[in-house]
Amino acid sequence: MAKRIDINVDMGESFGRYKIGNDEEVMKYVSSTNIACGFHAGDPMVMRATVRLAKKYGVAVGAHPGLPDLAGFGRREIKITPDELRNYIVYQLGALKAFAEAEGLKLEHIKPHGTLYAMVERDEALAEAIIEGVRDVDPELIFITESEERSKAHVVAKRKGVRVARDAMVDLHYSQQGDWIIERVKKNWDPNVVAERALMVVKEGKIPAIDGTIIKMEAETLTMHGDPSNAPEVVRTVRKRLEEEGIEIVPLREVLKK
Amino acid sequence: MAKRIDINVDMGESFGRYKIGNDEEVMKYVSSTNIACGFHAGDPMVMRATVRLAKKYGVAVGAHPGLPDLAGFGRREIKITPDELRNYIVYQLGALKAFAEAEGLKLEHIKPHGTLYAMVERDEALAEAIIEGVRDVDPELIFITESEERSKAHVVAKRKGVRVARDAMVDLHYSQQGDWIIERVKKNWDPNVVAERALMVVKEGKIPAIDGTIIKMEAETLTMHGDPSNAPEVVRTVRKRLEEEGIEIVPLREVLKK
Amino acid sequence: MAKRIDINVDMGESFGRYKIGNDEEVMKYVSSTNIACGFHAGDPMVMRATVRLAKKYGVAVGAHPGLPDLAGFGRREIKITPDELRNYIVYQLGALKAFAEAEGLKLEHIKPHGTLYAMVERDEALAEAIIEGVRDVDPELIFITESEERSKAHVVAKRKGVRVARDAMVDLHYSQQGDWIIERVKKNWDPNVVAERALMVVKEGKIPAIDGTIIKMEAETLTMHGDPSNAPEVVRTVRKRLEEEGIEIVPLREVLKK
Amino acid sequence: MAKRIDINVDMGESFGRYKIGNDEEVMKYVSSTNIACGFHAGDPMVMRATVRLAKKYGVAVGAHPGLPDLAGFGRREIKITPDELRNYIVYQLGALKAFAEAEGLKLEHIKPHGTLYAMVERDEALAEAIIEGVRDVDPELIFITESEERSKAHVVAKRKGVRVARDAMVDLHYSQQGDWIIERVKKNWDPNVVAERALMVVKEGKIPAIDGTIIKMEAETLTMHGDPSNAPEVVRTVRKRLEEEGIEIVPLREVLKK
Repeated sequence: MAKRIDINVDMGESFGRYKIGNDEEVMKYVSSTNIACGFHAGDPMVMRATVRLAKKYGVAVGAHPGLPDLAGFGRREIKITPDELRNYIVYQLGALKAFAEAEGLKLEHIKPHGTLYAMVERDEALAEAIIEGVRDVDPELIFITESEERSKAHVVAKRKGVRVARDAMVDLHYSQQGDWIIERVKKNWDPNVVAERALMVVKEGKIPAIDGTIIKMEAETLTMHGDPSNAPEVVRTVRKRLEEEGIEIVPLREVLKK
Repeated sequence: MAKRIDINVDMGESFGRYKIGNDEEVMKYVSSTNIACGFHAGDPMVMRATVRLAKKYGVAVGAHPGLPDLAGFGRREIKITPDELRNYIVYQLGALKAFAEAEGLKLEHIKPHGTLYAMVERDEALAEAIIEGVRDVDPELIFITESEERSKAHVVAKRKGVRVARDAMVDLHYSQQGDWIIERVKKNWDPNVVAERALMVVKEGKIPAIDGTIIKMEAETLTMHGDPSNAPEVVRTVRKRLEEEGIEIVPLREVLKK
Repeated sequence: MAKRIDINVDMGESFGRYKIGNDEEVMKYVSSTNIACGFHAGDPMVMRATVRLAKKYGVAVGAHPGLPDLAGFGRREIKITPDELRNYIVYQLGALKAFAEAEGLKLEHIKPHGTLYAMVERDEALAEAIIEGVRDVDPELIFITESEERSKAHVVAKRKGVRVARDAMVDLHYSQQGDWIIERVKKNWDPNVVAERALMVVKEGKIPAIDGTIIKMEAETLTMHGDPSNAPEVVRTVRKRLEEEGIEIVPLREVLKK
Repeated sequence: MAKRIDINVDMGESFGRYKIGNDEEVMKYVSSTNIACGFHAGDPMVMRATVRLAKKYGVAVGAHPGLPDLAGFGRREIKITPDELRNYIVYQLGALKAFAEAEGLKLEHIKPHGTLYAMVERDEALAEAIIEGVRDVDPELIFITESEERSKAHVVAKRKGVRVARDAMVDLHYSQQGDWIIERVKKNWDPNVVAERALMVVKEGKIPAIDGTIIKMEAETLTMHGDPSNAPEVVRTVRKRLEEEGIEIVPLREVLKK
């Protein structure tokens, strides 16, 4: 029986006249897209356009909410309260959901952006807050984060009955301890290297750490990044390689059925 | 048979540490509240708190979207395109709808804020855009504007099957031609004067213009403002006076059934 | 010989239509004003108006730069880099200096706002950055912070030849260890209590901590807050009481001559 | 005797993670740079970096202030009051001047950005306001705009004793009436075509309109745009061609001496 996996990429990060990424090219090869909601990136015009692209290519629409910091692109920690976070999540998810529904689509998942992704993994109160915000908007949303061992948000989601998908960032390095190592400016990776890493995640639940050690990495979705100049080629190569191995690329709603 | 009318007041205009209005006191006497959505005023914390106040007092929740200009409080015309407006409306309505639904309420109506209110009355393309934005989010929303003679948005809404409620701003002056006269800083009005004006609107479909002429003013909802320091007293007095005359204060969904 | 002390209050914290404080009343009784620069509060209209008030009452103009977070009023820590801080300081000080000079005044001092005040006290790299930013704009500026024991910014300023003035926040509580205790919403204090505390600072270099212990508190300037509703009365009372005791209220440039 | 002309290009339009233009390459060939000041584009980090580039290549630093609208990149008219404009100018010029002085340079000129450029040309009250704002900051600044016939700001500057430089936008089309025709997204032009147009401006005070008519175009500075992908080549080609014809490329302070 064929294995199934989701491929997700962050998109909709342009703002006004400022452009980031080649969303249309990348959209052709993914099964899920995480769309910025106007706090750390994105704006209402970009949100509409990105939702339309997702519709055109049959891709599942998810939210990519971030910290309220366009100047810092959501990458600087801001000491917000749990209450602030919960309401920031409702606001951003509500806005994106309206665009999805305006185009006849459903909002299907959420992946927190950048520093917020890390904050809700390690802070219990913020983890509670983001999951409550998700439930405020739609308890059927799928929450993308890391494993229970690594993510408080995972634990809270499970406890509160919110479905979780674990992601593996196959175009980023992990430390031997399984911490991902952020790059200030995303470098181009060799598409074949990323494809091999993706294959190992799907077939073995493992990935090579930066020092060569093989570490555990079970995942329902593969994360790649849209900002390197060769992003379309990377995602296309990964998809092709996985399909050659008989692996189906499907949105999270399908993956989680297994 | 008793007449029925709605009373609406703009609320949720605070932002972070900045406070405007005495929303809780005013909320006790209105049947509809128009809540700022974070573009010209309001923020996610204020939106949640205001929705909760509406729930506490059984008041219908509506959106009060504005131009993206916190520094100008939505009062400076910005030459946005119809496409921008449509997406700004979807974004703001979607965000507020999520808060309403998180609290178990329905988003029921929309009244554009400040300069945007005037822009969609006089510009056909913007009128089309805002009504399309409303339909994108929920075609059942009630749109508050002026009469067909005065408002292109009214004409477009009617043509596209969106329900309209006409408002009478009983605590603002109108010119003899029926134009409302904006005050940079809202002055306090004598509550009894406002109540007499409200009564004339409800019973006769008329109101005195600034020069004393009696002009036509048919309305399904009475607008009063929340920022004068005596706002709670004004709204309370109007409500009491109307009820003494056997007029029922009910939300727009009830008024429009007649 | 009479002692001399400066009284400083933060002002210019209004934004657009949002008003905070009664700056004109308070301005009558202070010798220095710290004016918000548009990042955490204030805007170009408010900056001009506040500089004019300072001119009218002969008050020394200083900058009150903050974190770039209007929604959080500069009270939420943001993990900015030293390089970002240095440039944020140059930007804000440059803007305010232009307003001061447009009105024929000199920018005389700087006091960091809110959380930034605390960040440059405890983080060496940020302390270096803010002092470099000050020197970029004008090495003659006086930097307001706490004592060398409590503030890395004080130590760095001294090392780099920037003049420092220590402030005592006489309308806030201090812990026994000398930490000030921030209030989310500033409460009204009894003006006579504040005056007695001010007097103890000036005459004895001491202040009562929240538990009644008397702790060391040497200062060149007394800080009071402009947002409590009785702020004008507090500042007036303190000034009057000090003058009755033969203490002169003068700007920092005069205090530092001693 | 050799003719002299200035070449100016707008720079510093990046914002946070968002990049626009190849400022370092373009900087090599210009004599003046107009740097965005954080309202429509730019931020404190970008301002510092751009001033440093100007220093490295010996280029005159000017301000490029805009409308407060990052989402619209300063291209949407906002109905601001003259008083607001004057203070917006002081704020932006003050901030950039501080960066220039921090790097040991002088702020030498100002060119209003985008829609603001057009607003102060046609609106007398706004023209007064911007020139007053310039005088508030430094009456020695050179103001870049069009001819007296076309620009109220030119007339006001002359009346108030502010030096003016007329610019010719040699990589944009003009109508037969001399109106420049803005492109939503700047297209690449043939560098040789731009060079011929530049040469005609310098040698004959004329330029071809979009319909081929030759119209009058006297200028002290040639404006080219930094956002087309071939911008460095265009500016380099123009400079080379002019120098081959014995024309000196010098900053405005030198051009205006003639």
